Amino acid sequence: MNKSVEILCIGNELLIGKTLNTNAQWLAKQVTSLGLTTNRITVVGDNINEISCIIQETVHRSPHFVLITGGLGPTFDDKTLEGIAKALGRNVEVNKDALEMVREKYVTYAAEDRMEEAELTPARVKMAKLPEQATPLPNPVGTAPAVSIQHKNVKIFALPGVPPEMKSIFNTSIAPLMKHAASGVTFFEASINSTNVMESKMAPIIDKVMQNNPHVYIKSHPKGTERLPHIEFHFSTTANDEITARNHVNKALSELTELIQQNGGTIKSPKTKT
Amino acid sequence: MNKSVEILCIGNELLIGKTLNTNAQWLAKQVTSLGLTTNRITVVGDNINEISCIIQETVHRSPHFVLITGGLGPTFDDKTLEGIAKALGRNVEVNKDALEMVREKYVTYAAEDRMEEAELTPARVKMAKLPEQATPLPNPVGTAPAVSIQHKNVKIFALPGVPPEMKSIFNTSIAPLMKHAASGVTFFEASINSTNVMESKMAPIIDKVMQNNPHVYIKSHPKGTERLPHIEFHFSTTANDEITARNHVNKALSELTELIQQNGGTIKSPKTKT
Repeated sequence: MNKSVEILCIGNELLIGKTLNTNAQWLAKQVTSLGLTTNRITVVGDNINEISCIIQETVHRSPHFVLITGGLGPTFDDKTLEGIAKALGRNVEVNKDALEMVREKYVTYAAEDRMEEAELTPARVKMAKLPEQATPLPNPVGTAPAVSIQHKNVKIFALPGVPPEMKSIFNTSIAPLMKHAASGVTFFEASINSTNVMESKMAPIIDKVMQNNPHVYIKSHPKGTERLPHIEFHFSTTANDEITARNHVNKALSELTELIQQNGGTIKSPKTKT
Repeated sequence: MNKSVEILCIGNELLIGKTLNTNAQWLAKQVTSLGLTTNRITVVGDNINEISCIIQETVHRSPHFVLITGGLGPTFDDKTLEGIAKALGRNVEVNKDALEMVREKYVTYAAEDRMEEAELTPARVKMAKLPEQATPLPNPVGTAPAVSIQHKNVKIFALPGVPPEMKSIFNTSIAPLMKHAASGVTFFEASINSTNVMESKMAPIIDKVMQNNPHVYIKSHPKGTERLPHIEFHFSTTANDEITARNHVNKALSELTELIQQNGGTIKSPKTKT
């Protein structure tokens, strides 16, 4: 059983459709390639009660990791840390290490002759107000520290919503931990594309190949229509080593390829990635 | 209080980061522009228990509408209708109207001299197996009908995950209903972009403008970094008529523009959309 992850994205801009949630896709892809499984992705708005509720619900499901993005900045609508604190029944307090991280950033900005002063205004101190017993994680490319919180068996990480900041912190502070937690589990995937055969005709054939290959998950993605069928078949598996994972996928892929051709379908250029 | 919506997206491809969830953004944007409010977006995998759980949780929160995408096709991994049935304690049964919709599609495909026959195989009949007391909605561009279900005060719609099918059905069968439910509520938004002023400096200024303009929500989106600050300020509101909504936003936008300039910031080309 792979270690499980839930992703929570906070931000009204996602709920009004202003912003495409590329953060969730990027994180889900990293989690998968590190050998863990994302069970759920949830988006809620900039509202302390909504944030608190979703965190309580998520923690209750007891995933190994919770990755939260958005709502760590200096403005009134950045409410993630207050929401986490409320959910876990902790107070919010100025964290000395976090304050030092924030202070250093503004000293650097001032020293580099920007027009701003290094003064720790309330809006800046806000970014260092963490739930009790939280640990700040350095933000290599932005100002607001990320936050790590252990709650019972659940490890919660809160990351900024600005994509370069989110990615940098994930790669630096979280990916190594997850890789360790995955303890060697490897994910492998491959795809083939077919034309000239309808998805409804392929349905029982996919069932058969999956029965023969119980470790491999095969999912069909219709790209055209049933009338002008163009289907991507995506194969994925996890195993304790890469060779096993690759062999499992390749066997299923060969079997399905043959059956597609026997049923009058044409295989277009196969696409394989690790 | 605007009518509320939740969006549920079903599909392993979203959880492994293979597919970017453009469906959720598109639906959220339509919902907003129709005058309703999306409270939450959730993604779960192709698993009956997961689907059933999230539907029970969602229905329990009693939104006016639930929009579900994905999992209506002919293959084994299309489990949305079974998941809905399980969540609501209903059986799944072949719906005569749905079967007729599916049958007509395959008759048309066969008549148009495609290589497929019109036979209603089990995989094709599967697309007409709906929860009891559900209503199929025609799919103008694909095969699987969409499904409408009334559960207590919650109106549930299940749509295919293939974007052109999802959009076509939404526009034809759901948007008119939602527009009616919104009963005249209008959403209006506008943005301005500033440079040369840090988000942390703007935080108390945004607070002040929002206090003066209680109907307008102002959200800052840092696009650069605190060091090379480039911020988008997004203004949004809903009102019972468009002129009021527009006036509310424009007043807040003018006030913030002036304060950004007083604080040394530069306004870049304003962007206004309806």
